[in-house]
Amino acid sequence: MSNKITELFNIKYPIIQGGMVWCSGWELASAVSNAGGLGLLGAGSMHPDVLQEHIQKTKKVTSKPFGVNVPLLYPEIDRIMQIIIEEKVCIVFTSAGNPKIWTKHLQDNGIKVAHVIANTKFALKCVEAGVDAIVAEGFEAGGHNGREETTTMCLIPHIRKMINVPLIAAGGIGSGKAMAAAIALGADAVQVGSRFAAAKESSCHDVFKQLIVKAKEGDTKLSLKKLAPTRLLNNEFYQKVLDYEIKGASADEFAELLGKGRAKKGMFLGDAQEGELEIGQVSAMIDKISSAKEIIDEMVSEYNSVVARMSNASF
Amino acid sequence: MSNKITELFNIKYPIIQGGMVWCSGWELASAVSNAGGLGLLGAGSMHPDVLQEHIQKTKKVTSKPFGVNVPLLYPEIDRIMQIIIEEKVCIVFTSAGNPKIWTKHLQDNGIKVAHVIANTKFALKCVEAGVDAIVAEGFEAGGHNGREETTTMCLIPHIRKMINVPLIAAGGIGSGKAMAAAIALGADAVQVGSRFAAAKESSCHDVFKQLIVKAKEGDTKLSLKKLAPTRLLNNEFYQKVLDYEIKGASADEFAELLGKGRAKKGMFLGDAQEGELEIGQVSAMIDKISSAKEIIDEMVSEYNSVVARMSNASF
Repeated sequence: MSNKITELFNIKYPIIQGGMVWCSGWELASAVSNAGGLGLLGAGSMHPDVLQEHIQKTKKVTSKPFGVNVPLLYPEIDRIMQIIIEEKVCIVFTSAGNPKIWTKHLQDNGIKVAHVIANTKFALKCVEAGVDAIVAEGFEAGGHNGREETTTMCLIPHIRKMINVPLIAAGGIGSGKAMAAAIALGADAVQVGSRFAAAKESSCHDVFKQLIVKAKEGDTKLSLKKLAPTRLLNNEFYQKVLDYEIKGASADEFAELLGKGRAKKGMFLGDAQEGELEIGQVSAMIDKISSAKEIIDEMVSEYNSVVARMSNASF
Repeated sequence: MSNKITELFNIKYPIIQGGMVWCSGWELASAVSNAGGLGLLGAGSMHPDVLQEHIQKTKKVTSKPFGVNVPLLYPEIDRIMQIIIEEKVCIVFTSAGNPKIWTKHLQDNGIKVAHVIANTKFALKCVEAGVDAIVAEGFEAGGHNGREETTTMCLIPHIRKMINVPLIAAGGIGSGKAMAAAIALGADAVQVGSRFAAAKESSCHDVFKQLIVKAKEGDTKLSLKKLAPTRLLNNEFYQKVLDYEIKGASADEFAELLGKGRAKKGMFLGDAQEGELEIGQVSAMIDKISSAKEIIDEMVSEYNSVVARMSNASF
């Protein structure tokens, strides 16, 4: 079976691995692409030369399509985009910025562009910018998120009703059941973050992977709302954030508490208590570290079971 | 097609109307039951004699099964339960309390009991209490909600994995697409609140119905977290709540701000600005006032379309 997204990106399954900071290097992206999904390198935690190295390594180990996720607020954005074009990367996912600035330039260089949003207002801006696909990310997703707090269940059908662009659902999706739900809601594909953050090939620290596996219901919360809303995993740093929230601290106080480099400290260097650990709500259901191929095969198999079950369940 | 829930309650479609305060009187409950769903009276906003009158009126206009939703913290709970048993109501949905206290007594009187929860911990307590069904309500739902903030997308598969009791999904469900998503996630049925709050037969004030129709993305937020987390619709009262949240007000200050009778003032008496307006995130997609029968027919038809589309979309 093929659909708008599998055709657009020339992939077998409509499963895209989120281009997450500190997790999404060449090993993860190539493993996902080799297993029939779309792997993405996460430029958000890479210096330009590091990104170039990861692109080159990915090309060596897979002949399948892969892409790069680029937060548009990145300080070295011009250099990043130059490398992507020079290295002939075919697919770019942009986030955290205005899709109008880069979309056309990338497309003129033969690149397919998807942009990540969390509300219908920005979905419409994506359409104006002429993107090839939209990633709509619900409240339950890890890391940075929208201020409207709209969940995947509410966001996807709303965007689907308004626009006709290929649509990728993100947030709360780590299983074939959730993949089927997203497609029922009107998505053409899913982007999976947390489950791949805990994959064998993920480049984050093993301490972080073990924390994802151990995470229980209610262990993540959308926090730091006075800065940029971010879903964090419960640890000592997060408890400090909660204390600040209860006492009504100012944005400046939050910025000082956060400081610099906390995400790297937690996710890449494995400081379980003082690091900033970005992960989705679905971590409560992740109970093992699997390879990217195992994750994709399991999701596709479960998705097919759900479709078979539902085919016999109409009224 | 039948399933565990349609068989348990002897209904045609696995669509249950939430027993919402100030909305769910005999007109709404009977209209839903007559259309093939399960209508519920909302005892949470009724004095015992008013509830008795609504039960008797409902029985006069429908021969189909219907039920009563009872918040267990209700002050006149003994009298409420006595009336329900005397009037031979067949189905009770309990919420906001311990399911162990009433479940067996109701079942001994031939009543099927469902209990509403928002996390896996209480789902397990429901199993221990021997309930006949569980309603699992996600973060996007209107009114009172869980502290874990788990969305429907994450909550339903988690509970389904742990327990085998008939499962009803709630939160974010007002369309056939969302109904299909809930069933893909592992639910046997859906409970629909907001969409029926805005139904023609809903007993809330027309001002409130018009506000639901006008509500846009981001217009509801889970608020009053220092008291009991409650999803509210944006108005002057809600803006005061937000101001209190930003400045870190205490639980006592929130309780004083809330005062008594605000939900009645907003939802039943139609005070658009000073009333407390409880509604779900899905209100952003509700754009018309329909009859209960139109809502159910539209949901079933859309659900069947989704199933037909997905039957041709496996990998």
